[in-house]
Amino acid sequence: MATIIDGKAIAQTIRNEIADEVRSLSQTYNKVPGLAVVIVGTRKDSQSYVSMKRKACAEVGIRSIDLDLPEQSSEAEVIAKVHELNENPDVHGILVQLPLPKHINEEKILSEINIEKDVDGFHPLNIGKLAMKGREPLFQPCTPKGCLELLTRSGIRIKGKRAVVVGRSNIVGLPVSLLLLKADATVTIVHSHTHDSESIIREADIVIAAAGQAKMIKGDWIKPGAAVIDVGTNAVDDPTRKSGYRLVGDVDYEEASKVAGWLTPVPGGVGPMTVAMLLRNTLDGAKRKIAQ
Amino acid sequence: MATIIDGKAIAQTIRNEIADEVRSLSQTYNKVPGLAVVIVGTRKDSQSYVSMKRKACAEVGIRSIDLDLPEQSSEAEVIAKVHELNENPDVHGILVQLPLPKHINEEKILSEINIEKDVDGFHPLNIGKLAMKGREPLFQPCTPKGCLELLTRSGIRIKGKRAVVVGRSNIVGLPVSLLLLKADATVTIVHSHTHDSESIIREADIVIAAAGQAKMIKGDWIKPGAAVIDVGTNAVDDPTRKSGYRLVGDVDYEEASKVAGWLTPVPGGVGPMTVAMLLRNTLDGAKRKIAQ
Repeated sequence: MATIIDGKAIAQTIRNEIADEVRSLSQTYNKVPGLAVVIVGTRKDSQSYVSMKRKACAEVGIRSIDLDLPEQSSEAEVIAKVHELNENPDVHGILVQLPLPKHINEEKILSEINIEKDVDGFHPLNIGKLAMKGREPLFQPCTPKGCLELLTRSGIRIKGKRAVVVGRSNIVGLPVSLLLLKADATVTIVHSHTHDSESIIREADIVIAAAGQAKMIKGDWIKPGAAVIDVGTNAVDDPTRKSGYRLVGDVDYEEASKVAGWLTPVPGGVGPMTVAMLLRNTLDGAKRKIAQ
Repeated sequence: MATIIDGKAIAQTIRNEIADEVRSLSQTYNKVPGLAVVIVGTRKDSQSYVSMKRKACAEVGIRSIDLDLPEQSSEAEVIAKVHELNENPDVHGILVQLPLPKHINEEKILSEINIEKDVDGFHPLNIGKLAMKGREPLFQPCTPKGCLELLTRSGIRIKGKRAVVVGRSNIVGLPVSLLLLKADATVTIVHSHTHDSESIIREADIVIAAAGQAKMIKGDWIKPGAAVIDVGTNAVDDPTRKSGYRLVGDVDYEEASKVAGWLTPVPGGVGPMTVAMLLRNTLDGAKRKIAQ
């Protein structure tokens, strides 16, 4: 049976580490890291993510600067707010919760964020430096960074291992591939045009599942003993629940737990790590400014 | 027997296409593209590359702006020259021949080149955009772009194919992997920490060999019918030659030609394409400025 990687517990350890560092930063410089969390509109899921992030900030002593803009805000108004936050010395990270209302161009808003405060790490300059040997980005994207942390903190060696990443999105698949390559894994990226993904995944010592397809990866697709990190969070109908649905990953958990060496659950695996890495990036951004 | 991909002939076709476009640009706007080719010092190999590039410019009607700086030029002097070229409206591309003398920081010099004139395409912002879905760099790096051109102009389908890139340098292996991924191949990157490269390469429909190791890839490492693009140019001793050496690729050509479906020779494969793509990038940069 697979060792279940407890993302919630690892994330809590990291949050404690962050809280310690924030405390010591505050004692030495009398300043705390600040994260601006911007939400436009009233989407329920976005509101719940945002309140989770704000709560997480509070818990580790990071000041969260909350901007709740109305649904009908214009693109120019949102950009003006981003510019204000760029200028604000108490803000070390800026997070704009996606998706934005349809009349606002997301790429345009994101590209207005000062690269030194781009704690999501999605700026193309950051991605380029992430990709290149001998270069380092200011911030690594949170979910990919969280995947690597789960591996290393579980004692799983990456160097020289076969890693297969399923999915190639800009926010997970692509950057996690680049991080694994930098960590000296032999990386293959599998996607919607790949023939026979199954047999490719079966060769992997490390699988990162980020395809967004519920239970796509079956138990017999997994090499016995492999480490499987499941980034998927797919809502499937579940009439036995009050909500009418439950969340499942891209991996068939029941089957995979009998084959894999390590496996992350959904929820409770990668999800808590994303928030922890956001806090970590904010702290790192603040340290660069405060503790020069 | 493999179909030999004649890089010299394909490059010549591309140069003719470029010459036509330069002519029509010049007729319509009375302006020609300009490429600044900067060399510092007197390294023989660099001088021969530079004179090849300048000659290639002349052949297609691109004006080459030649800067030959003395070996003892300071970093500040070279940067000042780059800034002049950035400002010069007749210059659409800037190429600084590497390596630079040891007292000059190459990364620093390259980062001074205006991104709109970075015809080498090595700026991290360009690499980031190359990597990201839905984004396009201003310029694709020349050798990787040349590899893709050789495939597509030889009628080799990339989408859905297994591609293995051997080597992960910033100038070839990494960007060619990203280009193949964007073209919907299933890409694996093999490098010095990879175990059993041989069996991974043997699964590839497309092999890009960019490891810089003479004849590393043997005939029986190649899947019958695969397309093999050999980026290596390694000098090996050859007492039968006047020069005392000859150039060989990363692939054992004799052996591979009996197994592969397509194969590029060394020299005469990728090499001429790199220069052709440099001209293409310069023309594209000029079109963006002249034919707005």
